[in-house]
Amino acid sequence: MVTMRDVADRAGVSIATVSFLLNDTKPVTAATRARVEQAMAELGYRRNAVARALASRRTHIIAMAYPALDHKFGFSATEFLTSAANAARERDYHLVLWPVGNDGTELTELLGQGLVDGVVLMEVQLDDPRVTVLQELATPFAMIGRTSALEGLSHVDIDFDQTVEDAVAHLHGLGHRRIVLVSGNLTDPLFSTYGPYVRSEAAYRRIAPEYGLETVVMECSGSTQAGQEAMARLIHNHPDTTAVMIVNEFAALGSVAGLSRLGRRIPDDISVLPLLMAPEMAALTNPELTIMRTPGPELGQLGTEALIRQLEGADPLPPQLVPAKLYPGATVAAPTGPQPKAAAGRRGARKSRS
Amino acid sequence: MVTMRDVADRAGVSIATVSFLLNDTKPVTAATRARVEQAMAELGYRRNAVARALASRRTHIIAMAYPALDHKFGFSATEFLTSAANAARERDYHLVLWPVGNDGTELTELLGQGLVDGVVLMEVQLDDPRVTVLQELATPFAMIGRTSALEGLSHVDIDFDQTVEDAVAHLHGLGHRRIVLVSGNLTDPLFSTYGPYVRSEAAYRRIAPEYGLETVVMECSGSTQAGQEAMARLIHNHPDTTAVMIVNEFAALGSVAGLSRLGRRIPDDISVLPLLMAPEMAALTNPELTIMRTPGPELGQLGTEALIRQLEGADPLPPQLVPAKLYPGATVAAPTGPQPKAAAGRRGARKSRS
Repeated sequence: MVTMRDVADRAGVSIATVSFLLNDTKPVTAATRARVEQAMAELGYRRNAVARALASRRTHIIAMAYPALDHKFGFSATEFLTSAANAARERDYHLVLWPVGNDGTELTELLGQGLVDGVVLMEVQLDDPRVTVLQELATPFAMIGRTSALEGLSHVDIDFDQTVEDAVAHLHGLGHRRIVLVSGNLTDPLFSTYGPYVRSEAAYRRIAPEYGLETVVMECSGSTQAGQEAMARLIHNHPDTTAVMIVNEFAALGSVAGLSRLGRRIPDDISVLPLLMAPEMAALTNPELTIMRTPGPELGQLGTEALIRQLEGADPLPPQLVPAKLYPGATVAAPTGPQPKAAAGRRGARKSRS
Repeated sequence: MVTMRDVADRAGVSIATVSFLLNDTKPVTAATRARVEQAMAELGYRRNAVARALASRRTHIIAMAYPALDHKFGFSATEFLTSAANAARERDYHLVLWPVGNDGTELTELLGQGLVDGVVLMEVQLDDPRVTVLQELATPFAMIGRTSALEGLSHVDIDFDQTVEDAVAHLHGLGHRRIVLVSGNLTDPLFSTYGPYVRSEAAYRRIAPEYGLETVVMECSGSTQAGQEAMARLIHNHPDTTAVMIVNEFAALGSVAGLSRLGRRIPDDISVLPLLMAPEMAALTNPELTIMRTPGPELGQLGTEALIRQLEGADPLPPQLVPAKLYPGATVAAPTGPQPKAAAGRRGARKSRS
């Protein structure tokens, strides 16, 4: 069977362009139209009633697009998935997971089949090719995450500013003055504009000085192994660190094992506070992690709701930012050693405990 | 829009029966036909060309059915998913994940849409309603796992007999004579006929006596918390245990933390050997776990291959059983205390080490 993709390849245009022409959803230049029609003729492509009907039918199925081959599918991702699936079910929709890459190629191929009414985008990059694909194919979508340009885009996301501020305030209130942020590896092209890394780091660089703290940011890939290695670097390069905040949940898990193996007691020698983690994952370490709890259950539900409102023509859901909240564990405590004097910050220490 | 489901509900028959009648895939009695046709007439259901075409078209999409709302989606599941998605991509298919329950209801609803060419079933129960659904709807499928009745069903699975035998032989060779199996909670209806629990226990009960070992099986739910609690019971009820084998990967993680908190040194006081775990997860504990490594990468690939061969009319993939293999870590060693004399087993001790 000849597909839209075959036609696009032969004509040297995008699948989206073929779709525009076939569905009459966007103007196409005469030259392009001629190329596409020639390709269709040469290949024997016949746009039939089925294809037309497919493009317009409602399936009551929505897809969550998650780049599972590039971004590890962890416990937080599972919380997003299950809460989204439950929210869909309550509204009489089915939610399925599309493990498609962030470059938009596979997303285009799947959307061309007319399988779903709309898409929930996960693991959003600041400049995300999938958004362009969805807009070009006129597919309703909602983001769990945010691109840089947001005009008119339906989205819900973690409130990174609030999350980092709450984390810093908590540690500062316990007496910590050397607080390092372990963020993602922004030199990895798959993550260079990944929202959680970029936004957490920006928030930390803005907030830490307000508390009179030096900013130290370490890069680290998203694996337990990388988290272990990062702790060796931390102890070597920043030996006076009393608390570490870690964005990636796998790296955070590895950091606990890494510090233990390096002979550091947690929390006596150093406090460990992941900025985004699910409680199920926090329970995997010994001692159990104190975490900023990823609002996966809330955001999975809200992202699905934002999409379904579009599908049903209801009032749009306004953008929602939800902070990760402190969730008690046993890896954060007041520092025990002698502490350096804090530089004069604009805010005083606050009392708090895990 | 009136759906097949609406028709089935009104006629008091299954969706499969409506599908048989509409697609002429299986004979339906005259009485049933009359009931269904009456329901269609009353509801205004019109079976149109689109529906017919949908039922027969090829989409080059395959679904992995995983009951993600009931079975936690852990590291091993992620390995199955990513290797299956990669295998599909190499063969120019897309793999999507359907987080549908094991009872077959949602699977029926999604299959009725004609969205996929076939299904890979995960988390198979000995008597699995999804198999009946797939057979009734004449949808090609392959199982990663095994039902009790297997005649003609395409499947790949873990070789539990070999896995348990290798694990017992390894521990026995190190000198262990008190080896407890921590299996699943078979009183939980969601897991009462779950293959990995049932088959691991059966293998252990068969193999342990061959090594002259008493059999002790403890039940445990699949969570870190349950694993911790199980270790308290173990130490109370079976204080002379020198090695524990654990089927569920979350329970296994919890058991390490649990034993540590109870003051037991691993492996000096007790060896811990999970029977199914991904290395990424084994790296989370301190000390790092010695594991039988879940063959997720192999089975995800093989299960997908088994399905695609059916879809392409190629020679069927013969059933494949792949054992979990010993993967080195630091939680298994020779027992240090005085050991009871082994009863005379049919096999001698074997030399081996982690």
